[in-house]
Amino acid sequence: MNPLSASREAAAATLLLQASRRSEIAPFIVMDVMERAARIEAQGGQVIHMEVGQPAAPAPASARQAARRALDHGRIGYTTALGLPSLRARIARHYGETYDVDLDPARVVVTTGSSAGFLLAFLAMFEPGDRVAIANPGYPPYRHILTALGCEPVLIETDAASRWVITPEALAEAHRQAPLSGVLVASPANPTGTMMRPEALAELLATAEGLGIRFISDEIYHGLDYAFPATTAAALSPNATIIHSFSKYFCMTGWRVGWMVMPAPLVRAVERLQQNLMISVPTLSQVAAEAAFDGAAEMEAVKHGYEENRLILTRGLPGAGLPEFLPVDGAFYLYADISRFTDDSAAFARRLLDEAHVAATPGVDFDPHRGHHFLRLSYAGSREEMREAVERIGAFLARG
Amino acid sequence: MNPLSASREAAAATLLLQASRRSEIAPFIVMDVMERAARIEAQGGQVIHMEVGQPAAPAPASARQAARRALDHGRIGYTTALGLPSLRARIARHYGETYDVDLDPARVVVTTGSSAGFLLAFLAMFEPGDRVAIANPGYPPYRHILTALGCEPVLIETDAASRWVITPEALAEAHRQAPLSGVLVASPANPTGTMMRPEALAELLATAEGLGIRFISDEIYHGLDYAFPATTAAALSPNATIIHSFSKYFCMTGWRVGWMVMPAPLVRAVERLQQNLMISVPTLSQVAAEAAFDGAAEMEAVKHGYEENRLILTRGLPGAGLPEFLPVDGAFYLYADISRFTDDSAAFARRLLDEAHVAATPGVDFDPHRGHHFLRLSYAGSREEMREAVERIGAFLARG
Repeated sequence: MNPLSASREAAAATLLLQASRRSEIAPFIVMDVMERAARIEAQGGQVIHMEVGQPAAPAPASARQAARRALDHGRIGYTTALGLPSLRARIARHYGETYDVDLDPARVVVTTGSSAGFLLAFLAMFEPGDRVAIANPGYPPYRHILTALGCEPVLIETDAASRWVITPEALAEAHRQAPLSGVLVASPANPTGTMMRPEALAELLATAEGLGIRFISDEIYHGLDYAFPATTAAALSPNATIIHSFSKYFCMTGWRVGWMVMPAPLVRAVERLQQNLMISVPTLSQVAAEAAFDGAAEMEAVKHGYEENRLILTRGLPGAGLPEFLPVDGAFYLYADISRFTDDSAAFARRLLDEAHVAATPGVDFDPHRGHHFLRLSYAGSREEMREAVERIGAFLARG
Repeated sequence: MNPLSASREAAAATLLLQASRRSEIAPFIVMDVMERAARIEAQGGQVIHMEVGQPAAPAPASARQAARRALDHGRIGYTTALGLPSLRARIARHYGETYDVDLDPARVVVTTGSSAGFLLAFLAMFEPGDRVAIANPGYPPYRHILTALGCEPVLIETDAASRWVITPEALAEAHRQAPLSGVLVASPANPTGTMMRPEALAELLATAEGLGIRFISDEIYHGLDYAFPATTAAALSPNATIIHSFSKYFCMTGWRVGWMVMPAPLVRAVERLQQNLMISVPTLSQVAAEAAFDGAAEMEAVKHGYEENRLILTRGLPGAGLPEFLPVDGAFYLYADISRFTDDSAAFARRLLDEAHVAATPGVDFDPHRGHHFLRLSYAGSREEMREAVERIGAFLARG
């Protein structure tokens, strides 16, 4: 082989091993924080974990017991693509019990966590090139999944004036610039922990439907509301798509099980996609999820713990030198403004972790524009950890 | 509101509820067969299930035991996106033990079944519009996942002359017509149950790499080989992508856990995609999968059952009036030629189910061109069922 063809072959081989452009999405910076925290712990450091959006409590005992029984029973086979019929019916009943909404179980689709819900909903609802509005700051996978599927995430800036949610005016303005195909909102929201007031949600939904913009409501943090009760978009319109999960309220992150409420005409498309892209949702997780609804008392106690944590932080952080944060309405996040200390939240989070052993997520994970001025603190840990965190943050800021 | 604007609004609402063009993929016909079989059983009929590609046996006891221990242990949280490090290491060891291949655990990515493996691999490797060659007949989700992601599946016809696999000549010819970005092969294959001889796999892979075509090997049925041992593409090239699963050999369908072996330069892209699109793979399933490797003796007994089933069918079906089928090399499928009886395999399968209570999948699920002449029979059931199936099929065909 002559040198020229050898170099050509090497070039071809390099090209062959290049990742696709559509996979060029940002990593989750929180993952890097987690790895750094693990290294500190390996060296004997005691890290307070406020970086992960994950409850410390296990799934309800009823859920674990149901999984055990299924394990004893025999084969864990595929289920139908839309999910176990009994689980779909139980989820529909939940809407009656919680929101007084009469929901047809046929509109409920069980998914492999809310993650698969987004994937299926976006694929079923949007074409490549479609513009979908999301709030900034927001959950990073929104924009990354949309990008990977060829859609264009349109970031709508939010601020204190509108309680950090998308307003009807901002939506209409973005639609005027170039037509939107969809809008996705979350209440309670990640990373901000803020919620949309019922009338704000209703007005935004009405505006979207009036403009022919499909409405997706991420309700994964429902049940974890402290300031006022969360409203489901399912109560407002049969055409809204709801994404939900057992991960947060029911403390079932690693089980990867969630659900969607779809507009009836879109269920069949989602079914075909789930058949082909996933076959079915993990069966043990579905069985456990159905039983999780029997564990509400246990979960209410867990929620009560978050409420106490929330008070420890909202009362303690101002005295510790961190007085500015967004309305702490729901979920288990406090989004703190650190602009008085830094223009580089990633470096600030690194120092906070290295020096005070408090792991938090820099805002740049959630907001490419103003995230360098914010820090997300998760309060899903224990009361003792929250008290200790306030002390450590106070000492860290006092050292300057 | 005047009637005109009302009708405009109705039109807008209809449009709003239309499924995307990319979700317009065919359903799995096997699912319809399953539903029809369930209705017969509800009326007291005894159906022999040869329609589903699913083992009747449960996961190995070691796997179920490990899941039980994890349930007792406490929280089932997220894992890192690439999977539990101990599971990735155990899978790498499996390549040493089974194929004498020294595999870096860093190239192993745990996935939510092989389904998620295809999704991640296609997204990481291919751009929208890319042409990817697959064998016809083949597993329907190959073409449907590719289509949903904006890629173009290029069906390469296979036939008896090449033992029903893609030949280097056919691949080169398709590439001449318009450049291919990838080729995906399966050995043992679904629905045919045929395998590629080691030299056929090596030649096809060398041809693909020579032409700059990325190579994906679906090895989900590895371990279930009866005619000759299956070869892994990982032994032939560090640039091949391997898709695998615990569903078939380890009887863990409903657990939704599998793995990929990626070319090293593509691992980071897959990690970013998994972080954003899935977060992580179901944790209990990962824990169980790692322990499943300790259940090999149990699984070899299950495999021995398939071997007996295979002999019952290959010896019995010719006498029952069904003498023509493809080489029954591996997996648990027999792909029978029914052209002497019908030009409509779906109608034939329906009659076989209704009249003989034998559920089988029409070839049209797997082959849009010649599938009306074929029927797929899964022999993952019990010995008694296989004997009974031969008798029922014989009586059905004798009735004409």
